[in-house]
Amino acid sequence: MKIAIIGVGNMGAGLARLLTGAGSDVIIGHRDPAKAVAFAAELGAGIEAGGVAAVVKLADIVILALPYGAIAETLKEAGNLKGKVLIDISNPVTADFSGLVVGHSSSAAEEIQALAPEATVVKAFNTIFAPLLPAEGRNGKALQVFIAGDDEKAKHAVSDLVKSIGFEPVNAGPLSNARFIEPIGEMNIHFGFFLGKGPTVAPAWVQV
Amino acid sequence: MKIAIIGVGNMGAGLARLLTGAGSDVIIGHRDPAKAVAFAAELGAGIEAGGVAAVVKLADIVILALPYGAIAETLKEAGNLKGKVLIDISNPVTADFSGLVVGHSSSAAEEIQALAPEATVVKAFNTIFAPLLPAEGRNGKALQVFIAGDDEKAKHAVSDLVKSIGFEPVNAGPLSNARFIEPIGEMNIHFGFFLGKGPTVAPAWVQV
Repeated sequence: MKIAIIGVGNMGAGLARLLTGAGSDVIIGHRDPAKAVAFAAELGAGIEAGGVAAVVKLADIVILALPYGAIAETLKEAGNLKGKVLIDISNPVTADFSGLVVGHSSSAAEEIQALAPEATVVKAFNTIFAPLLPAEGRNGKALQVFIAGDDEKAKHAVSDLVKSIGFEPVNAGPLSNARFIEPIGEMNIHFGFFLGKGPTVAPAWVQV
Repeated sequence: MKIAIIGVGNMGAGLARLLTGAGSDVIIGHRDPAKAVAFAAELGAGIEAGGVAAVVKLADIVILALPYGAIAETLKEAGNLKGKVLIDISNPVTADFSGLVVGHSSSAAEEIQALAPEATVVKAFNTIFAPLLPAEGRNGKALQVFIAGDDEKAKHAVSDLVKSIGFEPVNAGPLSNARFIEPIGEMNIHFGFFLGKGPTVAPAWVQV
């Protein structure tokens, strides 16, 4: 199982470090291949890197570690996505981060699925702040990751990936539930930034 | 501080029992005053009850323990709401409970505020299932109650109410954050019912 990570920002870099640390076969992609190559070199010897289409071609799972607004353009460069699992980790935030640009009757995840109908989109990780990706950043806690999607096999693969890096996968139903999960991500942004709790909070469902 | 509870369903009855148990001055309202009187008699000696306008007139805080779809008609009977704090506990669910009828650019709480501009609406309790209201139903746990509103004094009063019945009030920002809190309530319905966890789950924000 080869995992392509498109994007070398805080989330992409954090997931890449965790996944390589867990022994996954990771490949780094970026629209600017030089950026992918530079980050891969920093990540460790022998980590492959390249442009978007090149890494997508090699991967089984593709993590779109990009701002929502950059995803449509990036997917245009992705080539054939048939059979690929796309993990959407985005929160489709407004420019000032205080709201969402899509919601209620759609979601970022569903918009991405519509842009890439031959792929299988799975929503995950949008409620985890980048500083909480490393185990030491979360004091070793297995924070919950909400996984929504319409394909059970793809969700199972993403659950395994989530578990492999020390998080607790939580089945959150069909991809359309991203309409609820993305507002949860936005509320997390409000708690973390606008309401002063800091990027050290995360939502969880507790069982009484 | 007199608290009117409009509605004698699972949430209204549960909140009424908790609040009277905590020593609050509670009055029960219903569009059918006979139903309010019957429930008040069941609740305990000396609990006042009446029609909507009568109880609103006497109250400082009014809990709208009604399905979202019933609130507009009920507010038409409420009379003068000037200076009243209205607590909206609703999730504006579709007929099959799988989605929301309002969201993204508005919320139930904001719609109610628009219907009652002279009142102060505060969102609370929409992520707590009725079976989790009694302390024994939640094993004594202080579940989080997310409180959104635009008036700090009103939010403070609602926080005190929340604390008085054994829950943990969490400041969730302005009333417009109901756009995120209501999808959290809907995701809670998905976890509780559609995804099989049962009505014994609740969302919480954890601090790492």
